Amino acid sequence: MKTCRPLPICLAALTLACALVAHDRARSPVRIPDLPGFQTLKCDFHIHTVFSDGKVWPDIRAEEAWREGLDAIAVTDHIEYQPHKADLPTAHNRSHEIAQAHGQTLDLIVIRGSEITRAMPPGHLNAIFLQDARALDVPDWRASLAEAQRQGAFIFWNHPGWTGQQADGVSRWYPEHTELVNSNQLHGIEVVNGREYYPEAHAWCLEKNLTMLSNSDIHNPLGLDYDLHLNDHRPLTLVFARERTADSIKEALVARRTAVYSGTVLVGREEFLRPIFERSIRVKTPQVRVRGKGSAMVQIHNDSDVTYVLRPETEDPDLSFPGEVRLPGGKTALLQVRGRAEDRQAERVVNLLCAVTNLLVRPNVPLKAAIEFNVTLLPK
Amino acid sequence: MKTCRPLPICLAALTLACALVAHDRARSPVRIPDLPGFQTLKCDFHIHTVFSDGKVWPDIRAEEAWREGLDAIAVTDHIEYQPHKADLPTAHNRSHEIAQAHGQTLDLIVIRGSEITRAMPPGHLNAIFLQDARALDVPDWRASLAEAQRQGAFIFWNHPGWTGQQADGVSRWYPEHTELVNSNQLHGIEVVNGREYYPEAHAWCLEKNLTMLSNSDIHNPLGLDYDLHLNDHRPLTLVFARERTADSIKEALVARRTAVYSGTVLVGREEFLRPIFERSIRVKTPQVRVRGKGSAMVQIHNDSDVTYVLRPETEDPDLSFPGEVRLPGGKTALLQVRGRAEDRQAERVVNLLCAVTNLLVRPNVPLKAAIEFNVTLLPK
Amino acid sequence: MKTCRPLPICLAALTLACALVAHDRARSPVRIPDLPGFQTLKCDFHIHTVFSDGKVWPDIRAEEAWREGLDAIAVTDHIEYQPHKADLPTAHNRSHEIAQAHGQTLDLIVIRGSEITRAMPPGHLNAIFLQDARALDVPDWRASLAEAQRQGAFIFWNHPGWTGQQADGVSRWYPEHTELVNSNQLHGIEVVNGREYYPEAHAWCLEKNLTMLSNSDIHNPLGLDYDLHLNDHRPLTLVFARERTADSIKEALVARRTAVYSGTVLVGREEFLRPIFERSIRVKTPQVRVRGKGSAMVQIHNDSDVTYVLRPETEDPDLSFPGEVRLPGGKTALLQVRGRAEDRQAERVVNLLCAVTNLLVRPNVPLKAAIEFNVTLLPK
Amino acid sequence: MKTCRPLPICLAALTLACALVAHDRARSPVRIPDLPGFQTLKCDFHIHTVFSDGKVWPDIRAEEAWREGLDAIAVTDHIEYQPHKADLPTAHNRSHEIAQAHGQTLDLIVIRGSEITRAMPPGHLNAIFLQDARALDVPDWRASLAEAQRQGAFIFWNHPGWTGQQADGVSRWYPEHTELVNSNQLHGIEVVNGREYYPEAHAWCLEKNLTMLSNSDIHNPLGLDYDLHLNDHRPLTLVFARERTADSIKEALVARRTAVYSGTVLVGREEFLRPIFERSIRVKTPQVRVRGKGSAMVQIHNDSDVTYVLRPETEDPDLSFPGEVRLPGGKTALLQVRGRAEDRQAERVVNLLCAVTNLLVRPNVPLKAAIEFNVTLLPK
Repeated sequence: MKTCRPLPICLAALTLACALVAHDRARSPVRIPDLPGFQTLKCDFHIHTVFSDGKVWPDIRAEEAWREGLDAIAVTDHIEYQPHKADLPTAHNRSHEIAQAHGQTLDLIVIRGSEITRAMPPGHLNAIFLQDARALDVPDWRASLAEAQRQGAFIFWNHPGWTGQQADGVSRWYPEHTELVNSNQLHGIEVVNGREYYPEAHAWCLEKNLTMLSNSDIHNPLGLDYDLHLNDHRPLTLVFARERTADSIKEALVARRTAVYSGTVLVGREEFLRPIFERSIRVKTPQVRVRGKGSAMVQIHNDSDVTYVLRPETEDPDLSFPGEVRLPGGKTALLQVRGRAEDRQAERVVNLLCAVTNLLVRPNVPLKAAIEFNVTLLPK
Repeated sequence: MKTCRPLPICLAALTLACALVAHDRARSPVRIPDLPGFQTLKCDFHIHTVFSDGKVWPDIRAEEAWREGLDAIAVTDHIEYQPHKADLPTAHNRSHEIAQAHGQTLDLIVIRGSEITRAMPPGHLNAIFLQDARALDVPDWRASLAEAQRQGAFIFWNHPGWTGQQADGVSRWYPEHTELVNSNQLHGIEVVNGREYYPEAHAWCLEKNLTMLSNSDIHNPLGLDYDLHLNDHRPLTLVFARERTADSIKEALVARRTAVYSGTVLVGREEFLRPIFERSIRVKTPQVRVRGKGSAMVQIHNDSDVTYVLRPETEDPDLSFPGEVRLPGGKTALLQVRGRAEDRQAERVVNLLCAVTNLLVRPNVPLKAAIEFNVTLLPK
Repeated sequence: MKTCRPLPICLAALTLACALVAHDRARSPVRIPDLPGFQTLKCDFHIHTVFSDGKVWPDIRAEEAWREGLDAIAVTDHIEYQPHKADLPTAHNRSHEIAQAHGQTLDLIVIRGSEITRAMPPGHLNAIFLQDARALDVPDWRASLAEAQRQGAFIFWNHPGWTGQQADGVSRWYPEHTELVNSNQLHGIEVVNGREYYPEAHAWCLEKNLTMLSNSDIHNPLGLDYDLHLNDHRPLTLVFARERTADSIKEALVARRTAVYSGTVLVGREEFLRPIFERSIRVKTPQVRVRGKGSAMVQIHNDSDVTYVLRPETEDPDLSFPGEVRLPGGKTALLQVRGRAEDRQAERVVNLLCAVTNLLVRPNVPLKAAIEFNVTLLPK
Repeated sequence: MKTCRPLPICLAALTLACALVAHDRARSPVRIPDLPGFQTLKCDFHIHTVFSDGKVWPDIRAEEAWREGLDAIAVTDHIEYQPHKADLPTAHNRSHEIAQAHGQTLDLIVIRGSEITRAMPPGHLNAIFLQDARALDVPDWRASLAEAQRQGAFIFWNHPGWTGQQADGVSRWYPEHTELVNSNQLHGIEVVNGREYYPEAHAWCLEKNLTMLSNSDIHNPLGLDYDLHLNDHRPLTLVFARERTADSIKEALVARRTAVYSGTVLVGREEFLRPIFERSIRVKTPQVRVRGKGSAMVQIHNDSDVTYVLRPETEDPDLSFPGEVRLPGGKTALLQVRGRAEDRQAERVVNLLCAVTNLLVRPNVPLKAAIEFNVTLLPK
């Protein structure tokens, strides 16, 4: 092994200066494809600050969101729960104003919101796109929600299965929620909150045509709860918006054009998840050859940051496929196809139907999608 | 802080299954922009296997290269140095054949090569695009190189400042090298080999119009020498080729269309480094506003995997800039511009000339490039 | 925020030089406590090289093992399966000799072994502590095993549920295995091979008093199959030996003093797992106070590299405990204890019985262990 | 390569549950040896919260410090600079009270402090171990410091070369500082603040017998400024205390028993750095053999988290040593010793004197320390 002369100092300095000198203040994009006619915006509509029971000054929420690659946030401090108020007097609009000013310097959309924090039913609800949060601070929850509606807010039910209000963790629908939907004061539900997923809420959104949301409900500095360097991320509401503006986000929320991105799972209507998946992946070797019972590798590139897990379901007379194929985000993976006969000769189009097991179009129901490629079968 | 019901097992399994079950066999692309009319291929033309003094079976070299995102490799075992031959009899073409067969299954280009391993001068030279490596196994180095030339090889000088042949680490040009250039038997030089950079070789390539190369000379399994998970990478020769084929690579090498990518440094002719830089970055906020002596953030996205380090050099009467700006690969960074006067009002186009300190167009000479954006100056 | 003068170059260089200059050649210890009277040696007794169907020169196996913190390896190339032999003629003892010479420079124990590779039954068996592997190269498997026994080998059955020999992945015991046990030619079984765990084999080792083994069966360079930088590790056989010598390892293997360390799971006899667990953890706050229905944090430090997952099982009249507590390797974790009554006053010793769910004393049966601490209960 | 049956779900769940489910709330110890008679406590005495210009609620400062492995912190909000006061009225003692209450649940020492924030001279000074921070809020800085002294505070000068007060980044000593030292109102200086090192301050501490400090001056959530997952850490003041109590810390600060730990650099008096180094490392192969001009590997284990960089300085007639040896934290590294003669035969004790280039006993002056081992020289 040859002895090394280290890089001359000039180059070494360049090389190393790039490594550690200080933490970079930079934004990491979240790569999820746009849909035809819509941009896929990454949003978190449930966030706390020191102005209720959160632990950071509001500008930090804009900074964290910008760095993590989000397009929009709503700061939604509790109206009714103000544990810091002896030190920090209640001021319902201030957390928005502070976060919004910092967001502006970073081209991040910051939406005015509040958490209406009541016993179950109706539980906790977020109202976003408010004009003045102070007006929600009234004793009667019906009055508070009516005021939010009057201000044109988009209103959704938070963490319906939270053990703080449902000891067994099961989400329950109350007559009050029917009342709110009927009066157009409840437009969506958190299908994911933090690390929790609520399958009942998932089903209700489909049955009742409500908007699916996925939010962090973050109280701590983000980095204390999420291992961002390990590709962990806060739960995101994907909003399919015509433009990257607050107005477009609101229009999309009202039109139910959202999906849930939590951990490595996407939850949403098939019409949204299918094009996300299809636009993420590319077969890079559309034509492969298999000799006899030998095998060939189909290369599939995944341009998104979502790791897809496929379970091939096609039974093919000529070819066998693996039980599971993982397509890691940002990488090219291999799908091994193997011949079944020694002397088959043919040109085949394979349309491999797969369950994409981490994309849920209904509770426990994965998206089905096809991977297409051509195989030349040759005798051994 | 609310108590957490963990994700239901179905989702949790999905989430976690993506993390660790087993190491993924996958390819990570190296993102460096193509040039107009040319693809930027990532290549390593100096690699050893157990067939000389390397430590892995040749197919592993194709596997490692595919996973790391390379387009082409040449396996270049020593002709003269065969320390394993008591166990593994000399067979000069076999390492290529084995690596090539595996490369074919992965759509990786594997080029036949050999290292002609002599005392200095002329030192060690690689001949690639050979037809039969065995014919180089002759006592006289002139005869060996003449044979390589006869086979149409592209020939380059390896690690000219290697301390094994230059005790002080300084590269020296001998009459024999002039002889080889004159007889068209020396077409390029390694400007980087492993972790070493040879500034003298860098200068010679420019003076004598030789091709710049940057190769790993890897003997160990790649992962024992490079921390790939920390964005460390083997040194790469970037080849600007018309197509992703062996023939196109050869044409580009002969035409000197290469650059060096080592650590976080790019070394090459300005005509190549300039478009790589310019096609990597995008100003995402082309219009910013500065009030008085306040500041604004220009967002610059870097689509490549190279982290660029800028040293702004423009003196501007209205604005001041930071001493250094880092543009991390794959991220969006911030360039802070600050007003110099409280009451200036103007619309300005800024063409900020920067030294890109990790892009070397000559030894110690960085590329100069401009970042353009518009600033609206407003009184405080 | 204050502007930064970067560290002066002298310090910066020191700081950064430690980061990346080149991959360190260094050994990371695997921290698992010793047992009373025994050292816990980390071993892998199933490894391949280019001398059978592996992919690296044998010295690399010693280098990889030293860096990963192992104490001993056996290189066990196949006797009967020699796919490289056209290039590399069969030489059954050479891989050991080469690995052993490199191991010696690193103070790593390298044991001579071979894999006797037959159809099922009896399947594949490793014989280690051989004197001359060539003598095993005979047609009849009974003769081969008899020869191994004659040489004093320790013999174990490899991957009994390998789908290459058991299509459904279920391990099956054949009369031939009974025959081998009875003739003292089968001393242990791989309970883990690579990423596979064989619960049937786990049960057999307990029933029939055989030694439990956990080996990598590595063919590739280790780094292609294991993400060492993410705390992934090859499966290890923990050997509880009187000394760090080959003889002591053999004595311990024969005496069944081993355990399995695979992923984050330990599998083994209770007499070994209990002291490993108990010697790994330390309650750092042996005395805590709980006021009324409030809570206190018991700090538990884990000196080992194993992350323990506890499921408290004690029902306590005064205190409630979380459903699960994770004790990450090398860190201090928190166990939250909460009062059940507002006005209870007492001094309590708590002996919290927990299932350690990742330590298996039998298939699906976790180790039970107690965490002891004192609680002062105070009225609110 | 054999096909894999994945781990049965029971084991897989155990394995994976340990990886990602949620960010662990855990403490990572900082491993630096204790000194004879003293514990090495890891401390940060300069920290901000929302109660001045910081960005987090004070309890977060205790949480961050506990997780990072610190023993003690002082929260030191500015007395005079209160940019949040329109929202959060000035309350000088509150940040301490809140942080202290959280620290108590985690067994973290939280010391009452304040930053007296004045123009230069005397600049910014921290007073810690206060009884009532409100009494420092007086117009005259001399009065403020006298009050701190009256309360028994330990007082130190912050970031003496901060470009906000010294445009060129050079620390300057003013008559006011002499006055303060003479009146026993200035006991130490920050030699490191954030990412800045002040060599002038380093020299003054030695000349004037002042205490060296190294503090973060953190305003953001810690994770926004430090890449903790990459072994980055906030700058720490190492305090050599008789016990792990606030009183012992104060006694040690007054007695000048501290050192600076910043990045990978330790700065301090030789009497402290030498035993830290010597107690960190262990030669694991105290006896090696060298044959002729061959080499041997001396294994050196480093039990600390500091990576030491050694530059051997001994000229040895029999042996040559590498130009640099790195001893990565927590790992075992190799020191290669090479024979100089083919036929020398001897038993040698080697006492290899090294500059430890990242341990500074004075500006630009590394600690010198010896590594001892025995070499048996044998003829080839």
